[in-house]
Amino acid sequence: MIKRELPKDRPNDFSKIIPDVEKIINYVKTKGDEAIFELEEKFDKVKLTSLKLNNIEELASQVSEDLKKSIDIIYSQIYEFNNTIKPPNMIGGSFNGVEYGVLWRSIEKVGIYVPGGDKAYPSTLLMAGVPAIVAGVKEIYVSSPPNKINPVIAYISLKLNVKEVYTIGGAQAIAAMAYGTQTVKKVDKIVGPGNIYVQAAKYLVSSDVGIDGIEGPTELVIIADESANPNNIILDLRAQAEHGRLTFLVLLTTSDKLIEIVTRELDKDENTYFVLKVNSIDEAIDIANEVAPEHLSLQVENANEYLMKVKNAGAITLGSTPPALIDYSAGPNHILPTNSWAKIRGGVSVYDYLKMIMYASAKTPDKKVIEASKILAKYEGFNYHADSIGVRYE
Amino acid sequence: MIKRELPKDRPNDFSKIIPDVEKIINYVKTKGDEAIFELEEKFDKVKLTSLKLNNIEELASQVSEDLKKSIDIIYSQIYEFNNTIKPPNMIGGSFNGVEYGVLWRSIEKVGIYVPGGDKAYPSTLLMAGVPAIVAGVKEIYVSSPPNKINPVIAYISLKLNVKEVYTIGGAQAIAAMAYGTQTVKKVDKIVGPGNIYVQAAKYLVSSDVGIDGIEGPTELVIIADESANPNNIILDLRAQAEHGRLTFLVLLTTSDKLIEIVTRELDKDENTYFVLKVNSIDEAIDIANEVAPEHLSLQVENANEYLMKVKNAGAITLGSTPPALIDYSAGPNHILPTNSWAKIRGGVSVYDYLKMIMYASAKTPDKKVIEASKILAKYEGFNYHADSIGVRYE
Repeated sequence: MIKRELPKDRPNDFSKIIPDVEKIINYVKTKGDEAIFELEEKFDKVKLTSLKLNNIEELASQVSEDLKKSIDIIYSQIYEFNNTIKPPNMIGGSFNGVEYGVLWRSIEKVGIYVPGGDKAYPSTLLMAGVPAIVAGVKEIYVSSPPNKINPVIAYISLKLNVKEVYTIGGAQAIAAMAYGTQTVKKVDKIVGPGNIYVQAAKYLVSSDVGIDGIEGPTELVIIADESANPNNIILDLRAQAEHGRLTFLVLLTTSDKLIEIVTRELDKDENTYFVLKVNSIDEAIDIANEVAPEHLSLQVENANEYLMKVKNAGAITLGSTPPALIDYSAGPNHILPTNSWAKIRGGVSVYDYLKMIMYASAKTPDKKVIEASKILAKYEGFNYHADSIGVRYE
Repeated sequence: MIKRELPKDRPNDFSKIIPDVEKIINYVKTKGDEAIFELEEKFDKVKLTSLKLNNIEELASQVSEDLKKSIDIIYSQIYEFNNTIKPPNMIGGSFNGVEYGVLWRSIEKVGIYVPGGDKAYPSTLLMAGVPAIVAGVKEIYVSSPPNKINPVIAYISLKLNVKEVYTIGGAQAIAAMAYGTQTVKKVDKIVGPGNIYVQAAKYLVSSDVGIDGIEGPTELVIIADESANPNNIILDLRAQAEHGRLTFLVLLTTSDKLIEIVTRELDKDENTYFVLKVNSIDEAIDIANEVAPEHLSLQVENANEYLMKVKNAGAITLGSTPPALIDYSAGPNHILPTNSWAKIRGGVSVYDYLKMIMYASAKTPDKKVIEASKILAKYEGFNYHADSIGVRYE
């Protein structure tokens, strides 16, 4: 279906299911493994005998050589991208006689959630896992619904040197990794997309454990001019539509001809496509900045120029580069902010697995810095603060 | 009081007050300004006529020249530190024929909460605000309990080019900035410490708006060897104790003499100090890494060497540098992770006001990258993804 106006909202409200998810979390917190066995039978319709995948090597050996090679290539691509953006320690800065800097240190224990749903998402394990490897994370744990664990997930888990793979899905997987059970290791941070129950659970546990963010249905905004190939755009929109009916799909274009071709072709599809005419590519960029889409595709001439005007987006493809390449092998991530969160944070990267430690050393600071500190500390009523500073530099 | 063993927990549990805070948030969401006037009268005992500070210039002009100069010096120090660590755009990376990179863009609208309590915290406004300026944030809003707004906060607000200062405290301030009211602007991200109500409110609104983190009572771990000055250490611990009875205060030392002097002096104090003998500085570093303290002070010889062994801490001072210098003018921040969050994230910096946008451009990618993407996409059942990639490079 084609609509010619953008919707006011992209609703992704999980407030109604919060009480249910809270119950699941509390149940896992108090009953541990026992609760999970019961919840897996209830929600995933599986009677498990173990919450851990015990035959990883055997399962991994079933992967075809073609698939193995593909995974290895994609692994390297994501690795190189993250290695390029990995921040170095900054040591030896100084101002007014105070030496300072920052150290970047990896998080120790990370839990990756690989979602279920209609399809399988081993690529998500690569997207979440490889940046963790680049960061130097020592302990990676993986959880995924039991019916979704396949040989490729096993193969990638081996490549990532994953400590344990849990056959647990939904809110119970998030609760287990957040608080630990007899079988499941408590982690420092949980990363990964999932359905609304998974996202609600991530939100709820975020007072006790780190999360990457709350991810909703996927989004694609394509900006195209006369130079764009209509067939490519149709395929790009249909590709993104493969993620389900809630996907948010937008084409902003200056070309009437493009609108005509795309509209004619996609009008019969089940998904809703928002197709808008704009007067200029600059206008389209303004709209995109307001929408802050997960994926932005700049299928325009001089895409590099317009790239610099983007303020809010998860990931961007330039020119004829297919947006789906980000989903697999370009290097950037496909776990990205949705529902306007791109105004606030970026997609999953090596930064999600690092944290910054600041330090300062003041052997011979300028006198004015010391005086300023003492004056403000005293004004605020922190006299010992002032004294502890003053006693050093008298 | 002196204790010779570390506690098992640093409790900072706000689960009991969640229902109350939820009520406050929902009330502000539905009734807007009206709710805030009522809540301010109830909690801060002030009958407000406006929710905005309207006489900023006049108030700011009351600040003494000495204080103004001190604030200007501290402002510069925080500015330079954050400017040094500000990440540049990374443009022009490439691997296997795919060009990629990241752009760093500032968040647009930021709300800073300046807490109330026994004392005044204008320094917190500098700590939260200056990194935002370095990031290029266009719209900064400030909120603080009405009885805590003073000339210095007004002066700093002018320096930060703050759009509006709201005379609102507590959970109602957080709710107002998260959802907007007739008077209060809805922001993209809320930054700043506060009491347990403020922190619970930040947690609750974090599904709808960015937050810096959840900050609890302040913490200091001092590691000291024979070379440390006992008087300095006593002052450092008492300085940190000025933040209140919940402050977590630890001394780890190899020196019996130091333990004797410090214990004798501090045993009469109201605060609890944890004083532990260690066999080596390495052992102390291990303990500190487990505790992941907000502030870590390395009052040892060769502090630079031990610095590199720290894995988890908010901010570190080296050698005789007073920890309190971080609270004012060293450059690093004093809004830092507490309660073990230093295992997961760092303190407030320019990074809190930036987000990363990833991009990729693949005009002539290596064939193997394209093949790998198509193979994995088909395996996952995403045929249009595969087609949208394939059609470009056939």
